[in-house]
Amino acid sequence: MIPRYSRPDMVAIWSPEAKFRIWYEIEAHACDAQAELGVIPKEDAAEVWKAADATFDVARIDEIEAVTKHDVIAFLTHLAEIIGSDAARFVHQGMTSSDVLDTTFNVQLVRAADILLDDMDALLSALKRRAMEHKDTIRIGRSHGIHAEPTTMGLTFARFYAEMERNRNRLEKARFEVATGAISGAVGTFANIDPAVEAHVCKKMGLRPEPISTQVIPRDRHAMFFATLGVVASSIENIAIEIRHMQRTEVLEAEEFFSKGQKGSSAMPHKRNPVLTENLTGLARLVRMSVVPAMENVALWHERDISHSSVERSIGPDATVTLDFALSRLTGVVDKLVIYPDTMIANMNKFRGLVHSQRVLLALTQKGVSRETAYTLVQRNAMKVWEEGRDFMEELKADAEVTAVMTPAEIEEKFDIGYHTKHVDTIFARVFGSS
Amino acid sequence: MIPRYSRPDMVAIWSPEAKFRIWYEIEAHACDAQAELGVIPKEDAAEVWKAADATFDVARIDEIEAVTKHDVIAFLTHLAEIIGSDAARFVHQGMTSSDVLDTTFNVQLVRAADILLDDMDALLSALKRRAMEHKDTIRIGRSHGIHAEPTTMGLTFARFYAEMERNRNRLEKARFEVATGAISGAVGTFANIDPAVEAHVCKKMGLRPEPISTQVIPRDRHAMFFATLGVVASSIENIAIEIRHMQRTEVLEAEEFFSKGQKGSSAMPHKRNPVLTENLTGLARLVRMSVVPAMENVALWHERDISHSSVERSIGPDATVTLDFALSRLTGVVDKLVIYPDTMIANMNKFRGLVHSQRVLLALTQKGVSRETAYTLVQRNAMKVWEEGRDFMEELKADAEVTAVMTPAEIEEKFDIGYHTKHVDTIFARVFGSS
Amino acid sequence: MIPRYSRPDMVAIWSPEAKFRIWYEIEAHACDAQAELGVIPKEDAAEVWKAADATFDVARIDEIEAVTKHDVIAFLTHLAEIIGSDAARFVHQGMTSSDVLDTTFNVQLVRAADILLDDMDALLSALKRRAMEHKDTIRIGRSHGIHAEPTTMGLTFARFYAEMERNRNRLEKARFEVATGAISGAVGTFANIDPAVEAHVCKKMGLRPEPISTQVIPRDRHAMFFATLGVVASSIENIAIEIRHMQRTEVLEAEEFFSKGQKGSSAMPHKRNPVLTENLTGLARLVRMSVVPAMENVALWHERDISHSSVERSIGPDATVTLDFALSRLTGVVDKLVIYPDTMIANMNKFRGLVHSQRVLLALTQKGVSRETAYTLVQRNAMKVWEEGRDFMEELKADAEVTAVMTPAEIEEKFDIGYHTKHVDTIFARVFGSS
Amino acid sequence: MIPRYSRPDMVAIWSPEAKFRIWYEIEAHACDAQAELGVIPKEDAAEVWKAADATFDVARIDEIEAVTKHDVIAFLTHLAEIIGSDAARFVHQGMTSSDVLDTTFNVQLVRAADILLDDMDALLSALKRRAMEHKDTIRIGRSHGIHAEPTTMGLTFARFYAEMERNRNRLEKARFEVATGAISGAVGTFANIDPAVEAHVCKKMGLRPEPISTQVIPRDRHAMFFATLGVVASSIENIAIEIRHMQRTEVLEAEEFFSKGQKGSSAMPHKRNPVLTENLTGLARLVRMSVVPAMENVALWHERDISHSSVERSIGPDATVTLDFALSRLTGVVDKLVIYPDTMIANMNKFRGLVHSQRVLLALTQKGVSRETAYTLVQRNAMKVWEEGRDFMEELKADAEVTAVMTPAEIEEKFDIGYHTKHVDTIFARVFGSS
Repeated sequence: MIPRYSRPDMVAIWSPEAKFRIWYEIEAHACDAQAELGVIPKEDAAEVWKAADATFDVARIDEIEAVTKHDVIAFLTHLAEIIGSDAARFVHQGMTSSDVLDTTFNVQLVRAADILLDDMDALLSALKRRAMEHKDTIRIGRSHGIHAEPTTMGLTFARFYAEMERNRNRLEKARFEVATGAISGAVGTFANIDPAVEAHVCKKMGLRPEPISTQVIPRDRHAMFFATLGVVASSIENIAIEIRHMQRTEVLEAEEFFSKGQKGSSAMPHKRNPVLTENLTGLARLVRMSVVPAMENVALWHERDISHSSVERSIGPDATVTLDFALSRLTGVVDKLVIYPDTMIANMNKFRGLVHSQRVLLALTQKGVSRETAYTLVQRNAMKVWEEGRDFMEELKADAEVTAVMTPAEIEEKFDIGYHTKHVDTIFARVFGSS
Repeated sequence: MIPRYSRPDMVAIWSPEAKFRIWYEIEAHACDAQAELGVIPKEDAAEVWKAADATFDVARIDEIEAVTKHDVIAFLTHLAEIIGSDAARFVHQGMTSSDVLDTTFNVQLVRAADILLDDMDALLSALKRRAMEHKDTIRIGRSHGIHAEPTTMGLTFARFYAEMERNRNRLEKARFEVATGAISGAVGTFANIDPAVEAHVCKKMGLRPEPISTQVIPRDRHAMFFATLGVVASSIENIAIEIRHMQRTEVLEAEEFFSKGQKGSSAMPHKRNPVLTENLTGLARLVRMSVVPAMENVALWHERDISHSSVERSIGPDATVTLDFALSRLTGVVDKLVIYPDTMIANMNKFRGLVHSQRVLLALTQKGVSRETAYTLVQRNAMKVWEEGRDFMEELKADAEVTAVMTPAEIEEKFDIGYHTKHVDTIFARVFGSS
Repeated sequence: MIPRYSRPDMVAIWSPEAKFRIWYEIEAHACDAQAELGVIPKEDAAEVWKAADATFDVARIDEIEAVTKHDVIAFLTHLAEIIGSDAARFVHQGMTSSDVLDTTFNVQLVRAADILLDDMDALLSALKRRAMEHKDTIRIGRSHGIHAEPTTMGLTFARFYAEMERNRNRLEKARFEVATGAISGAVGTFANIDPAVEAHVCKKMGLRPEPISTQVIPRDRHAMFFATLGVVASSIENIAIEIRHMQRTEVLEAEEFFSKGQKGSSAMPHKRNPVLTENLTGLARLVRMSVVPAMENVALWHERDISHSSVERSIGPDATVTLDFALSRLTGVVDKLVIYPDTMIANMNKFRGLVHSQRVLLALTQKGVSRETAYTLVQRNAMKVWEEGRDFMEELKADAEVTAVMTPAEIEEKFDIGYHTKHVDTIFARVFGSS
Repeated sequence: MIPRYSRPDMVAIWSPEAKFRIWYEIEAHACDAQAELGVIPKEDAAEVWKAADATFDVARIDEIEAVTKHDVIAFLTHLAEIIGSDAARFVHQGMTSSDVLDTTFNVQLVRAADILLDDMDALLSALKRRAMEHKDTIRIGRSHGIHAEPTTMGLTFARFYAEMERNRNRLEKARFEVATGAISGAVGTFANIDPAVEAHVCKKMGLRPEPISTQVIPRDRHAMFFATLGVVASSIENIAIEIRHMQRTEVLEAEEFFSKGQKGSSAMPHKRNPVLTENLTGLARLVRMSVVPAMENVALWHERDISHSSVERSIGPDATVTLDFALSRLTGVVDKLVIYPDTMIANMNKFRGLVHSQRVLLALTQKGVSRETAYTLVQRNAMKVWEEGRDFMEELKADAEVTAVMTPAEIEEKFDIGYHTKHVDTIFARVFGSS
């Protein structure tokens, strides 16, 4: 977690204070359930709630852990200090540390997912707004970095919208994956604790009981969670790369918003660099790098080993904090992206009319010219445009073999931009719904 | 794709013959739709189906491609040879190569997913059968590789079942992710082809139309697909590691089935090595390695670049073929796993009664002993078992501080195995449903 | 291994025939050493060489393996069939299968590395030739995709040369890493075989004896080998991305060579797509994906488990074959790359004189203007060029605050291209050596 | 970077204070060189050293950066505040931010590598000591987790020593890879700064000049650096897994040192879990996860983009800090590992004599029995041991077909442990040198 790529709400989820607060809630709810079952006295369970407004002293817990070398015992000792009565001895009864730790981790992941879903909504909203705004802004479509056929800027935003909507959907599923808790004891048999405790705690913490756990919640759930973050990050990279291309000097169809006070480079004051999207490209790699270790974490030995723990201490906060920041940064970039429709037109016309060659090719075949011949006819005129800077339409009109089958008006009709945009509304309706 | 780790049905999906067959079907269905729209003559569209029973000559297509350096043109040329009439010139009209290639790739992935889902069903069936069979087979649960508390072998199979059922679910979602097709032209605008063609082809090929495509279907879908395969592979590794542990000489609670003719090692004839599950561990790595490149494939330049293609030519077949083989191999291993319940009991009793220390600890605290004191009482007797091979129950009965609060009968009750298995039925009902 | 991305020499290394040939040589050399030690009769050892010209029948070996389920035993059985005498029984004496398998794998990797080193030499040669050719071809340097200061095309080739020379160096080290063999028996103790056998076999096969092996050669060596291939692949991607950028329509400073017969796209005949470098981008991902599993292979259980084997059956051939193909393809691309110096000049001058702003900034501070003020002066004139298409030099000459400290001649001098190229020879001498 | 897995010396390298200190030194040395060249006044260069004892105010720099949005400008502004004279305006002259940032990053990596090399020395020393101590401690060698032939604990330590010595070697090479600096300007042409400045700064900072840089130092160097860390981490995992196996309840050949005050588990007081080596397994995954993004960082656009930066802000500190901690933790584990030679013997003898089957097999073939027959003879007696708990030697003596070719004394001789250890000294000499 790098401070400059972090936002406070997501960071807060992973603070020691937040963690101990969740531990406490799990323990207190478990006491309630145990009291309900008659395992511990109801008044003692009630007394545990005396700490409801306490702030847990992280330094004090660390101090105890330095002696006991066990974090949950350290916490329980401190909790006993706060409660200050015999009631403390009933806390954690029948439970194993992992009951608390694993359930807590999932609570944190669920809360992180909630923030990410909100981030996604903001991003979707920005993408939709820009899509509508530029629905009809003509722009050349490119394959292989080479001009192909016209499209619109709105379609570009719309496809990012569709991709991110899929990602929102995946994030919801990922949230569902990890929204389970387990209070099932040392090897998951509920030997020392009734399943009713798990049911109660999970309900209170917004989780489902894990159908079958060992000492831990199975890690395939987390692998799926982090894999999903990796896919979202890859989509962020996808949008970032598009914008970086648009901003490069020779293209210049858009620029990241450049505030007045901002200095681009200490050496070249005229430069406006797409540093936010370049940064997003890097952040995507950072989020993605948690995927493989999360998958390596799945194969724990027997009922658990603790190899996954250090990995999760790192990737839990890092991947969610970085993704939250990246989504938010991307939303800002999209929202304020400065778009240059005139440059888009100028770029498209760089090779005078050549982008319409496909239409001419089709027209020739529809006139009965064989595919091979049509290809040759188009190619020889196209090459004059490419190599000599001629105008494609004029060359066609001057080509006797072409005019033998197409009238000048028919040729001109093939250069109509409206031809390419006629289904934009259809596509928008598919993406955004018809309104 | 390694022949020894391949099964024919999955391999067939990725054969050139299968690919060209799908290409053909897409082209022929597209002709039907174009004819319906009046774009091409109905009789010509009908004539394209003349090739319905043809076998495409892969060598001939390769020969043409060697000249044209374009695979789809090579195929179309060959198709024209087969149809042998003018009708051929209408084939592929308004389409771009990617319309065919991408839709085909998704058809292949969907079919691959269908095989994987069948594999999963077989595996789930084997896991369920073994879970039921060993529901009450007592076995020590282990955390950190160290004996913890008793559990049953059935619970182990049940948790693998639950994990694989989640994976089946994920595979269904992954199948849904890639079950789209696109016939949208050079940059996805449908400029040269009506969306109705896409709708018709997709319906016929068992796909949904991609709501918004460029020249290609967006690759976040495929990233999610391969990420899911990576999670499934990780679960395979999880089961494989468990079995490898069970088979190691000192544990020997289970063995992979060892057929009579089989030689274990050229040098040590008595050895029965868990080579199938070791192999599965490696195969899991192979499937997993496709996840990162699939994610790197998402960020294509503008409306497409072709960097993803070589990656997919490799990971498409490799990951699905390997996973199919691995699931099938694992099903065989689970199905025939030789299980030794007696050894399980013997292992559990290695440290005489020590596995019950947790229960004793709890009992002491319930008798009013402080957590710290109870811990000390249990620990000092446990150490005698550990270091001197004493019997834990006897030591407790001889410890005056223990007997001051617990009667011999109460102590004995704490060593009852039934205590640990009392919720097995509950858990089984959660996993398999109550019947 | 994908046929279309494979070259025959590298593929041959990994053929069953080549593998069995190496097995045979190892076994025969081992017999010689055993005979020298008096362990087996010299005449029997000599007789083993009767198979020196034999071709091993892969189908027959597979047939035997189908029964024995053990590849080395199958091979030895077939070898005995060929030798056709009692001598066969001394073959493999005291050895374990892994002695043969692991030593063979390293022989194959060494041979693969030799081909890769040759590939590298060819690539280096092409890069050097193009660097020399375009040493003084002026071109704008870009950071963040934005014009920065002038550089030369030769410097770009020179830096790729330097990077690939480092990679050649790394490949040599990687080759050294895996150039070891082991004939040390079932757990590496030489209990059944004298270390002299290992020494003899290794010498004959061009390897060093592994100082300490278990049943296998330690896999950190192979992890380092494949990690190195991953770095080389990343450098290929680096060059590929540069060329893809140069070829994009708006930049067009270079194009991959486009042979006459080749068709770019079935739909847009004028398109010349950088498909080779896009393909190289994908191939880089494929090579790189072997790195993580190779690292996961390091942690084998005790004296060995066989989890690494399936991984290596895949990544051994795949990574080396793909990298060989990629290096060769890249060499061809570099060798024949069509370069457009005029476009480079035109691109550089797109924003009239703006690329010289850094020099002007420096000049101003050297004239005693504070850094902050100089920055402001440069920025305000630069913005006029950027936004209004003015000429930077003229604007500066018209800015009273600028002309207050710089004469027109001094301003003009700051726009001299020679200023930027004055150290090109120095850098070339650093990269290629002074000649 | 997780505090609990961090050590202060390595953390200090990555502190803002350390970073700004290096920035300052680079700038001050550059001023000296510029003064020597006559570019700036010598007295001003001297004055820059007035800040030599200053502590840079990180908060103040952050404050300035919040306005300028440029970290190097913020630093230079603060430096000017400290120097408090006109001399400040000469600082950074002709340089670009990356000259400072990239050279600094490499200084940090070199220093990190130095700590890692020291860590490695400590680890090697511990491994060597334990190897010598247990050179003759007999232990069963295992392949596939199954007993194979005897070996010694010393050989296990010796092979870890050899592996780590290779890693030390690799780390030295990795250090060499990144021990370069660049002061070459905006696109690496030295247009605004003489190469002599680079030479001087590099010499003073303990680096070599990068032969050819762009705006940045090429990232293939860093990819190789992090790939090497990944290999080292994989070797740590290798040792960790061995120890985890040794400590598992059924094996118990060793235990991590367990200090008196330490509590193993809150629930099972007798448990001594190998938590340090399990933790190391996880830490290895964390270090390894930096490899792929470091490779993805290689392909920067043209003369640089900044996508690599956020990745390096994370993996630079994280991978080195984690690896430093892991190496140190592993050294402690090895150093204090409690080893149980008696248990090793007991484990070896679990299947009475079966581990000697390979020797018997060999002996039979040496007596002239065919390989196939010998195999059968050994196998049938071995099975009695395996299945009925018989003693292998006794069974052999009772097998008429065996005694037909081997005398009882000859059979007994095959069960001599010394046979397996006779080359231990040879191997030790190969690993540690003969002394």
